[in-house]
Amino acid sequence: MPAFTVSEIARRVGARVEGDPERAITGVAAIDAAGASDLTFLEREALLSRLGASTPGAILVRAGVDIPEAAGAVALRVDEPQLAFIEVVRLFHPPPRAHPGIHPTAMLGAGVRLGAEVSLGPHVVVEEGSAVGDRTEVAAGCFLGAGSRVGRDCRLGHGVSILHGSILGDRVLVHAGARIGSDGFGFAATSEGAVKIPQVGRCVIGDDVEIGANSTVDRGALGDTTIGARTKLDNLVHVGHNVRIGEDCMIVAQVGIAGSARIGRGVALAGQAGIAGHLSVGAGARVSARSAVFKDVPPGETWGGYPARSHRSFLKASSALLRLPHALARIAAIERRLGLDPGTPAAAPDDDAAETRPGDP
Amino acid sequence: MPAFTVSEIARRVGARVEGDPERAITGVAAIDAAGASDLTFLEREALLSRLGASTPGAILVRAGVDIPEAAGAVALRVDEPQLAFIEVVRLFHPPPRAHPGIHPTAMLGAGVRLGAEVSLGPHVVVEEGSAVGDRTEVAAGCFLGAGSRVGRDCRLGHGVSILHGSILGDRVLVHAGARIGSDGFGFAATSEGAVKIPQVGRCVIGDDVEIGANSTVDRGALGDTTIGARTKLDNLVHVGHNVRIGEDCMIVAQVGIAGSARIGRGVALAGQAGIAGHLSVGAGARVSARSAVFKDVPPGETWGGYPARSHRSFLKASSALLRLPHALARIAAIERRLGLDPGTPAAAPDDDAAETRPGDP
Amino acid sequence: MPAFTVSEIARRVGARVEGDPERAITGVAAIDAAGASDLTFLEREALLSRLGASTPGAILVRAGVDIPEAAGAVALRVDEPQLAFIEVVRLFHPPPRAHPGIHPTAMLGAGVRLGAEVSLGPHVVVEEGSAVGDRTEVAAGCFLGAGSRVGRDCRLGHGVSILHGSILGDRVLVHAGARIGSDGFGFAATSEGAVKIPQVGRCVIGDDVEIGANSTVDRGALGDTTIGARTKLDNLVHVGHNVRIGEDCMIVAQVGIAGSARIGRGVALAGQAGIAGHLSVGAGARVSARSAVFKDVPPGETWGGYPARSHRSFLKASSALLRLPHALARIAAIERRLGLDPGTPAAAPDDDAAETRPGDP
Repeated sequence: MPAFTVSEIARRVGARVEGDPERAITGVAAIDAAGASDLTFLEREALLSRLGASTPGAILVRAGVDIPEAAGAVALRVDEPQLAFIEVVRLFHPPPRAHPGIHPTAMLGAGVRLGAEVSLGPHVVVEEGSAVGDRTEVAAGCFLGAGSRVGRDCRLGHGVSILHGSILGDRVLVHAGARIGSDGFGFAATSEGAVKIPQVGRCVIGDDVEIGANSTVDRGALGDTTIGARTKLDNLVHVGHNVRIGEDCMIVAQVGIAGSARIGRGVALAGQAGIAGHLSVGAGARVSARSAVFKDVPPGETWGGYPARSHRSFLKASSALLRLPHALARIAAIERRLGLDPGTPAAAPDDDAAETRPGDP
Repeated sequence: MPAFTVSEIARRVGARVEGDPERAITGVAAIDAAGASDLTFLEREALLSRLGASTPGAILVRAGVDIPEAAGAVALRVDEPQLAFIEVVRLFHPPPRAHPGIHPTAMLGAGVRLGAEVSLGPHVVVEEGSAVGDRTEVAAGCFLGAGSRVGRDCRLGHGVSILHGSILGDRVLVHAGARIGSDGFGFAATSEGAVKIPQVGRCVIGDDVEIGANSTVDRGALGDTTIGARTKLDNLVHVGHNVRIGEDCMIVAQVGIAGSARIGRGVALAGQAGIAGHLSVGAGARVSARSAVFKDVPPGETWGGYPARSHRSFLKASSALLRLPHALARIAAIERRLGLDPGTPAAAPDDDAAETRPGDP
Repeated sequence: MPAFTVSEIARRVGARVEGDPERAITGVAAIDAAGASDLTFLEREALLSRLGASTPGAILVRAGVDIPEAAGAVALRVDEPQLAFIEVVRLFHPPPRAHPGIHPTAMLGAGVRLGAEVSLGPHVVVEEGSAVGDRTEVAAGCFLGAGSRVGRDCRLGHGVSILHGSILGDRVLVHAGARIGSDGFGFAATSEGAVKIPQVGRCVIGDDVEIGANSTVDRGALGDTTIGARTKLDNLVHVGHNVRIGEDCMIVAQVGIAGSARIGRGVALAGQAGIAGHLSVGAGARVSARSAVFKDVPPGETWGGYPARSHRSFLKASSALLRLPHALARIAAIERRLGLDPGTPAAAPDDDAAETRPGDP
């Protein structure tokens, strides 16, 4: 593990030092886990209380925030503590670099164009007519189908599939096992039964996109599936055919987006949310975890629930639901007082039939 | 990109031409995206309005449907426009063909039987005693475990696992990263703690089945997990051990089917639905997106919700739930009028305890 | 298929035989599917009725449980029938053994340490500084990143990723396509937009853990993601960065656990459940299928629902919800009787706006 003095780190991130500039820093840690030779950061003053549990050697912090004497930390004053911290993390943990060059077991088809300093790992297959940009690293076992294009400074993890004709921008990260450009789920109901609709569109992925492990992004049926620049997908996300996702979206793990949905710019879809097909989620909208969206979400709104509606309405209904069993008793008490007959639920027959079926044959 | 005249296309799909048979067609497109040299199709007359946004060169359409003059499209009259369109799509976008033959890096175990014109891509592993049928294409990095059998005219995508003893019919498509025949999730509670129950059954997949990218179908514990002919699974679907899925089912992305469930013929499970273990979903039933099924679904019914019940009941309850907060206020108003005491909810203690715990320690 | 006499099997599992010790047994089967030469087991007396449908050759059963004469089965008396059955299953279905040794196509980096009798399959990549323990089997196409360590007697399925620095204990099973140690989903909101937070922690997996096909376990951001000994994960499970899962947990298919959650010892998370970030699920707690947990679950409790609460409260609310449409009618009838005005729902404006938007643009 490398070691740096506080002043070396300060120079790197443009910080002003308050305390001993010669203190040795040997690692980075979260604010509640930092030891005497670790550097940490304080992004919000409200988190200052967490310092109680640790004694960091140094702390990146905004000007004007008082660090308690007792903490014993050297203060490095910066405008954006987390951004500076990220730079220091990279200093202590440089990202693992792929071995440069083309591994002898990599297979290249006819007419493949490779940029400068491309790294292709063992057992990589790049089919005919594909292109890989400068400095892009392709880990072991990846497959780049015919006519695919991957931009510069991309990193493809172990065993990734970039299927034929898919297009990735620059600085795209695709984590292990993700599938880009597999067939969408489309079948025509015909006199011959369900007939597969050929999926002949493409996947087009913008610059600086990140796609999580084992996620799947289907190619378009006709036309393209597109993911806008800087959008991030977590693990095990499903993106159906002809979906269009705007720029700067955050799509958390296990979200599913059905075919032809439109996700506007800057949308956040929290974990396990689902978006039904052909819907529109407007720019800047937020969908809370586990929500199931069955109609258009207007721009800028926060929705939640199953089926999803405004998050406020979802929370109110969820809270009211907890009081419902008691409310039913209150209604019955009122009816008794008034001598009213509760009557028979109109929907009872089929619901009751459903309720009373045995659980397991 | 190839080009065809209208009359060449008409001959191919058996259409009657109304308009210029010599018009050149250079591509296919959806009805709202077709340009002057594209062919499109009109499956339902109700979609005719979408023609407003485009000027297709030609349109596959049923007899008797009037195409507006303004659209300027040559009409190709057919009985099933979408079916004919699929044929034309294949004409313009022939599916990418695997390189024929056995790649020199493919590994074959003892006693492997390969049919005529089989294609095994780079780094494919076929273990001892396996068989691959005529014309089947196995993409790079696939693994066929010992004693597995894959039928004729199948296509296995990049990195697919067909684990030992699994059996696939003819014309099966398995997309990249799918896992067929991995161990089911079974443990016995014993005096020695949880002990793994050996998973020694098989996966048996019928003809014309399609399995989506990164989906998982577990082998049986004892006996088999089976998927009937023509059933289609989308991406990231989970099928537990000893599940039996009938013929002609549609299982949409991220659905989970727990162990030993029985899914009848012609069932549709929409996206992110879940079926609990040992249940039966009757033939022809439909389960709506995100539903969680905890009891048997009778044949032919449409269910939805969490927990799932008849879809009609689910929709009514969902709609009523939105009115519940207001209804609670109405109950309180009635009680005030009558001088009634609302009383204390019986369930309050444990619910309130839950409600008031801090969200994060 | 091998064959054994009843007495050979009895000796193997320490059973006392009641009936013909020379009867030939050629296979194992479930109690409702066993034929005259199959052995089965009866774990609970309540399942005795299933014997009606079958005529097993032999049955593992506790002392004192009467097997009907008509069944014709030889009884093998044991203390734990299922545990004994598992041993017999292994006798008839010995697990497929990997080919011993290092396949010539496997790639080993500098300083890799391999234990005795390690099996590395075709196209395996083990990067520099990694270690693999005695008798561990690594199937075709696996990737072990730089500095990773895999213990003794582990089995890694086809195409598994053990990313750099990950640590697995002994007897760990990882099924095909699982990804251990891919980047967590972490971005800082900065003046330069979302900036990726380097994910430099590790994945640390305890002894006897099992991880299902295509599951993903992210590395820690700083510090580690940990999974305790004997915990079992099913397929397509997502575990976020810095999650800590205790020992002896059961995590069923398609569960998602968001970053920094703490899952105590002996917790059961049923299929498709979700746990929000930074929460704590106490030791011994159970979360029912499809539940969405948004606050801490106390130790030992059973929770369910969306949002999750005590399972009892969830069931009562679900049941009450089915009666809600009728209850609304009853409230209206009371108001009519009393001449009360139902008033206007306070939340109507935004909800109605949401309700009346068109479903698809």
